[in-house]
Amino acid sequence: MNQLRRAALAYARTHCRRFLSELKEFLRFPSISSQHAHDVRRCAEWLARHLQQIGLLNVRIFPTPGNPIVYGSWLRARNKPTLLIYGHYDVLPGEPMAEWHTPPFSPTLRGLDLYGRGTADDKGQLFCHVKALECFLQGCGTLPVNVKCIFDGEEEIGSTHLLPFVTRSKRGLRADAAVISDNKMLGPGQPAISYAQRGGLRAEIEVRGPKQDLHAGTFGGAVLNPVQALCEMIASLHDEDRRVAIPGFYDDVRNWNDKERAHMARVGPSDERILENAGVPQAWGERGYSLYERTTSRPALVLNGMAGGHYGQGVKGVIPTRALAKLSFRLVPDQDPRRVDQLFREHIARVASKAVRVSVRTMSPIEPAYIDRNHPAIRTAVFAYKKGFGAYPVFLRSGGSIPVVNTFGRHLGIPTVLMGFGLPDDQNHAPNEKFHLPNFYRGIDTSIWYMAAASKTLRPGNQEQRSMESRKARPV
Amino acid sequence: MNQLRRAALAYARTHCRRFLSELKEFLRFPSISSQHAHDVRRCAEWLARHLQQIGLLNVRIFPTPGNPIVYGSWLRARNKPTLLIYGHYDVLPGEPMAEWHTPPFSPTLRGLDLYGRGTADDKGQLFCHVKALECFLQGCGTLPVNVKCIFDGEEEIGSTHLLPFVTRSKRGLRADAAVISDNKMLGPGQPAISYAQRGGLRAEIEVRGPKQDLHAGTFGGAVLNPVQALCEMIASLHDEDRRVAIPGFYDDVRNWNDKERAHMARVGPSDERILENAGVPQAWGERGYSLYERTTSRPALVLNGMAGGHYGQGVKGVIPTRALAKLSFRLVPDQDPRRVDQLFREHIARVASKAVRVSVRTMSPIEPAYIDRNHPAIRTAVFAYKKGFGAYPVFLRSGGSIPVVNTFGRHLGIPTVLMGFGLPDDQNHAPNEKFHLPNFYRGIDTSIWYMAAASKTLRPGNQEQRSMESRKARPV
Repeated sequence: MNQLRRAALAYARTHCRRFLSELKEFLRFPSISSQHAHDVRRCAEWLARHLQQIGLLNVRIFPTPGNPIVYGSWLRARNKPTLLIYGHYDVLPGEPMAEWHTPPFSPTLRGLDLYGRGTADDKGQLFCHVKALECFLQGCGTLPVNVKCIFDGEEEIGSTHLLPFVTRSKRGLRADAAVISDNKMLGPGQPAISYAQRGGLRAEIEVRGPKQDLHAGTFGGAVLNPVQALCEMIASLHDEDRRVAIPGFYDDVRNWNDKERAHMARVGPSDERILENAGVPQAWGERGYSLYERTTSRPALVLNGMAGGHYGQGVKGVIPTRALAKLSFRLVPDQDPRRVDQLFREHIARVASKAVRVSVRTMSPIEPAYIDRNHPAIRTAVFAYKKGFGAYPVFLRSGGSIPVVNTFGRHLGIPTVLMGFGLPDDQNHAPNEKFHLPNFYRGIDTSIWYMAAASKTLRPGNQEQRSMESRKARPV
Repeated sequence: MNQLRRAALAYARTHCRRFLSELKEFLRFPSISSQHAHDVRRCAEWLARHLQQIGLLNVRIFPTPGNPIVYGSWLRARNKPTLLIYGHYDVLPGEPMAEWHTPPFSPTLRGLDLYGRGTADDKGQLFCHVKALECFLQGCGTLPVNVKCIFDGEEEIGSTHLLPFVTRSKRGLRADAAVISDNKMLGPGQPAISYAQRGGLRAEIEVRGPKQDLHAGTFGGAVLNPVQALCEMIASLHDEDRRVAIPGFYDDVRNWNDKERAHMARVGPSDERILENAGVPQAWGERGYSLYERTTSRPALVLNGMAGGHYGQGVKGVIPTRALAKLSFRLVPDQDPRRVDQLFREHIARVASKAVRVSVRTMSPIEPAYIDRNHPAIRTAVFAYKKGFGAYPVFLRSGGSIPVVNTFGRHLGIPTVLMGFGLPDDQNHAPNEKFHLPNFYRGIDTSIWYMAAASKTLRPGNQEQRSMESRKARPV
């Protein structure tokens, strides 16, 4: 096994330049899941061909009513454990485009950072594992573990079709642990394992008033303005203590004991660090909690955007017809997104004025996840990080959500190792997203160390090694 | 004089088709004052040439730092009064374009209505007077009164440069009464004279938060969201009684006596009528006042639009960097826009959170106006309406603002006759703006009757009849 690992690590050294140029190729697809179905499909095809080229077997593209799922497996390691590697090849839009120093889909190296949409979230991190697999398969002709890769084309829009796909494919996806690299470390050289993530729920509130824009002079004072009505509803969502003011919202929020809070205070980023990463001068939020707690173990309600009426250049004295707000809840154990959905709708119905028509849409419910830090799959990751990055990782909570983590736990009965290679200032979801190139290479090493170690530390489950052959899928 | 008037009315009958096609030509210029400086200028040149063709003398285009002012006069009626005719040839943008049944700058006749941007507000109404002047000048070779026309290219953006122009040109613009047709009647066949109009003040609130969009999962709960902060500030602008909640805002609002309120209740449109015109099912606003009062004799604060973050298609889980709201105050006697400006800024400073940067911009202050209903210029308009429309006008207040009215009163010392030819459902400022064609023709007749009658009812002031010869202006 040591020999395998050494050969794989040596292969990684030799081919590091090519790895980077392949990653750039991968990044050039504007695989924006919410917009570019065609480019997402082209990206899926490229990724599937790539998995085949590096030596994965049974590579398939599973179509869904949305974007396809890319699958590839290698199941010839007898009596060895099986890892399920998840990542997503879809990305967010580049807007606001004007703020990018180089175009989002023209990956550009500046210093040690590779800039572009998807560099860190998640193509670059996903690619660490793909390249680690190549190092074994091409460098040694074999893998120390069995592997099933499943790459999502809709993570940024809530993994709408992946979640039911996983639920339906329990047998085909059976594994001993899942590995996902779509998280952040604490800082350069300070790896971290995320053992908790917030869940979520997206919502839209739409307010409709007059059938068409009205003259503000002629009607101002007699007609409820949709923008004003929406602002007042949004204002009603937080109270003066900056807590979410929806009745019942905090009922199911778990109170962590002093030991856990002390652990969080010890290992988590300081308030100053979080403010610095956010680039804001002053904190905000629920009193009585550190910023790290506010963004990980406490729930939040975030306004993602809002628009109504005339907001461009020039002047237009109108009462507009309509206003729209997009928002997202970030939920924590033991909140249930379905329950929050209901409470939210009840609250809006209660505060909505009868003088306008208000409609609420909710989507993408994601349950929060919490993973046992003592599971062998997690302990193995600690070791692999120490080898890959030269430092032991700390255990962090994550404020974001990877929708599939909860599904893996609940439906496949396996823990997920959230093995992040990102950095806090990677600007995920923002202009000038980047991936720190040393983390790309150390990520590959860490993945190699992880697979080699897991082949000994993880007990293979009693599973027939069947993959996804029987399912309908496009051949690659 | 009767002969003159009869000849002018006959000329109007004979040439009514050409008048319509000329109006369409005038409407085809997209003279959007807030955007299309070039088209505004071309429109001004067309209008000036047209004034020259119909026989006005001393036609000039006065350049300003913004859009030009078109001027033309005819001052050969010795010992007769002088009318100052004001109108505006600029228009609002067409947005939202998708809702127009025919393009805003391709005037189209459907039934008895002429559709297009500016048909009613204000090119069509302005053109009634231009055509009435032509009927006298071309039909009789003379005018019963002296006339000075002043046509604004910036009314929709607050008449920024016209107001100081009027103040500077007191002698050149000296007249006995001003006439403006940029208002609505009560309904078809129900003329109205507006004797009061609300003033105004435009404002923008901009909120800046993080330097760039932040991941809503990573930072949600620890950073004040600019959209949320702006919504909360906007919500703070009204209280639960739907009154403007800015301290001191109502201090200078005049309380009208019972007689005036009874007059308003008797002649003004009913709540039902106003709701029907607005196309909304339910009223809103300050308790204790009819909708007619709320929109004319009571002040209001109207949100014209707002935007921030991601509000387009798809999903983007961000905390946005910035949010902007545009709003306008509608003010009544004896409110002073400068005082309201100060109170508004103080209020925003008081409620703004320190966790975001808030900036306030204000512009286009307009003082409210109130005109004596017994002035001979107004009584003459009652007579002219009866002749032109076959019905006596009612005296109405207007909720909108024509910035120059107050300036005429204060700096030229003359009353303004607000002789509206529009209808309540003309959709000014909205898609599918229209002008009722019978009102165009009756408007021309009414203007002819008005000039003929004013030559007898108005006492000419002791004025040397000098026009604007001495001022710098582009020749036409």
